[in-house]
Amino acid sequence: MNRPTFTLTRRVEFHETDAAGLMHFSNYYRWMEVCEHEWFRALGLEIMTVGDDGQARGWPRRESSCTHLRPLRCGDLVRIRATIEETGATSLAYAFVFEKDRAGRWTEVAHGRMTTIHVRKDAAGRMEAEATPAPVRTAFAPA
Amino acid sequence: MNRPTFTLTRRVEFHETDAAGLMHFSNYYRWMEVCEHEWFRALGLEIMTVGDDGQARGWPRRESSCTHLRPLRCGDLVRIRATIEETGATSLAYAFVFEKDRAGRWTEVAHGRMTTIHVRKDAAGRMEAEATPAPVRTAFAPA
Amino acid sequence: MNRPTFTLTRRVEFHETDAAGLMHFSNYYRWMEVCEHEWFRALGLEIMTVGDDGQARGWPRRESSCTHLRPLRCGDLVRIRATIEETGATSLAYAFVFEKDRAGRWTEVAHGRMTTIHVRKDAAGRMEAEATPAPVRTAFAPA
Amino acid sequence: MNRPTFTLTRRVEFHETDAAGLMHFSNYYRWMEVCEHEWFRALGLEIMTVGDDGQARGWPRRESSCTHLRPLRCGDLVRIRATIEETGATSLAYAFVFEKDRAGRWTEVAHGRMTTIHVRKDAAGRMEAEATPAPVRTAFAPA
Repeated sequence: MNRPTFTLTRRVEFHETDAAGLMHFSNYYRWMEVCEHEWFRALGLEIMTVGDDGQARGWPRRESSCTHLRPLRCGDLVRIRATIEETGATSLAYAFVFEKDRAGRWTEVAHGRMTTIHVRKDAAGRMEAEATPAPVRTAFAPA
Repeated sequence: MNRPTFTLTRRVEFHETDAAGLMHFSNYYRWMEVCEHEWFRALGLEIMTVGDDGQARGWPRRESSCTHLRPLRCGDLVRIRATIEETGATSLAYAFVFEKDRAGRWTEVAHGRMTTIHVRKDAAGRMEAEATPAPVRTAFAPA
Repeated sequence: MNRPTFTLTRRVEFHETDAAGLMHFSNYYRWMEVCEHEWFRALGLEIMTVGDDGQARGWPRRESSCTHLRPLRCGDLVRIRATIEETGATSLAYAFVFEKDRAGRWTEVAHGRMTTIHVRKDAAGRMEAEATPAPVRTAFAPA
Repeated sequence: MNRPTFTLTRRVEFHETDAAGLMHFSNYYRWMEVCEHEWFRALGLEIMTVGDDGQARGWPRRESSCTHLRPLRCGDLVRIRATIEETGATSLAYAFVFEKDRAGRWTEVAHGRMTTIHVRKDAAGRMEAEATPAPVRTAFAPA
């Protein structure tokens, strides 16, 4: 069984660093989300939609975590590899590995996890979990 | 004639610094906006409203600028003094002075400007300029 | 045995929200760090120091995580309560509870964890774990 | 006389938007800087260097400004065109045009300016303006 994967490559930008000279840890989480959104885009899926009932759907985060092994610095080229760990009834569980280019060899610098929930938002802005749409379920099913 | 003013004091946080060890210049703009929003709040005014017609109103930026004289570092205590430079038909023009606490003396580190436009947003998300609401005009009128 | 605690209160700022109308999840992590830094400051401790050997010391993150129960919106008043879960040989483990003011009652919206490592940075920028300084160990010891 | 130009294309990411559903104005400034840094990189130049005297050199911002004509939304594809307006004795003046892809046609959404100063930083962290390095002067000279 092969879990679907997606890879994103990007460079650490100056505004993402902090006074310790390293990429600020909050930005690893932003990159996880960019990875998630680019993956949806690559599959022709949309993160935010409006249903026939006029109500908005989206994928807010339920949980996230990150473990750091080595730092990232301004200009570092980074590869983020995302995997789907679980396609739940109303959720998606992702795992991420961050690797840095060190003289042509990819070295792991961090890994993380993120669980998102599929929700419907009513007119008052209240969110309620709703079944993972079939196209998403199909796209992320293990092969 | 006295122009209305508002003062905000805050400390440079670690995530606001960059690898040069200084507060990143984009954050001066965020602070101008925080100052604007806190000023509205202090006056009992709201930045984002929904009118009787069900359409949203807001104050997006038309222009902004900033000039830096001295850097800010993590932990620096900063005073931001905002002044209204002009209450336009559909706009507000602000000026800001950023001062750092240096051994008990406030020293100017930067100054900036920002012009916001009062807009109405239709159902399709299109924004159109709309007259500055009377309570805002009154609150920011020179005394 | 009482674990030391620290409380920070702050308001969600506009630049911290996203197009879903909620505080972006990366900012919960920034707030955990602000809480950590303000706690050090309140205890008269410093996050970044330079030793007698001329080498820098700091507290980079090893792990962090966050679980969301309810969303936060622009202007929400939030209380973050930090607790020390463990004072390790070279690390500190924090737990955080985020609570929102709902009509005068604090309601939990999220909780998180963060582990930081005390490191010494050599001239080449390499970081090595170093024993938690005695003043930090004492300040954060359970009473 | 042709002024040197550089073009960067990027997509508005979710974490760059705000509760008004638009890209937050502070991020236009971050993008100007990304453009500056990528331009240096493309020319084989470095933004932050350490001289033979062991002192750091860099290019902090002296002034910046931005004017908004139309909003940007999550997922918008944007082209940023940078031009050098002036190569000063110790400074560089940039102009930027932001264009959005609207059904295959690039439409201007904003324009900005940024002036950076070449500085040397002494051991105490004090910054002093220093002559623009010859390779930078040559690279950015009008043709």
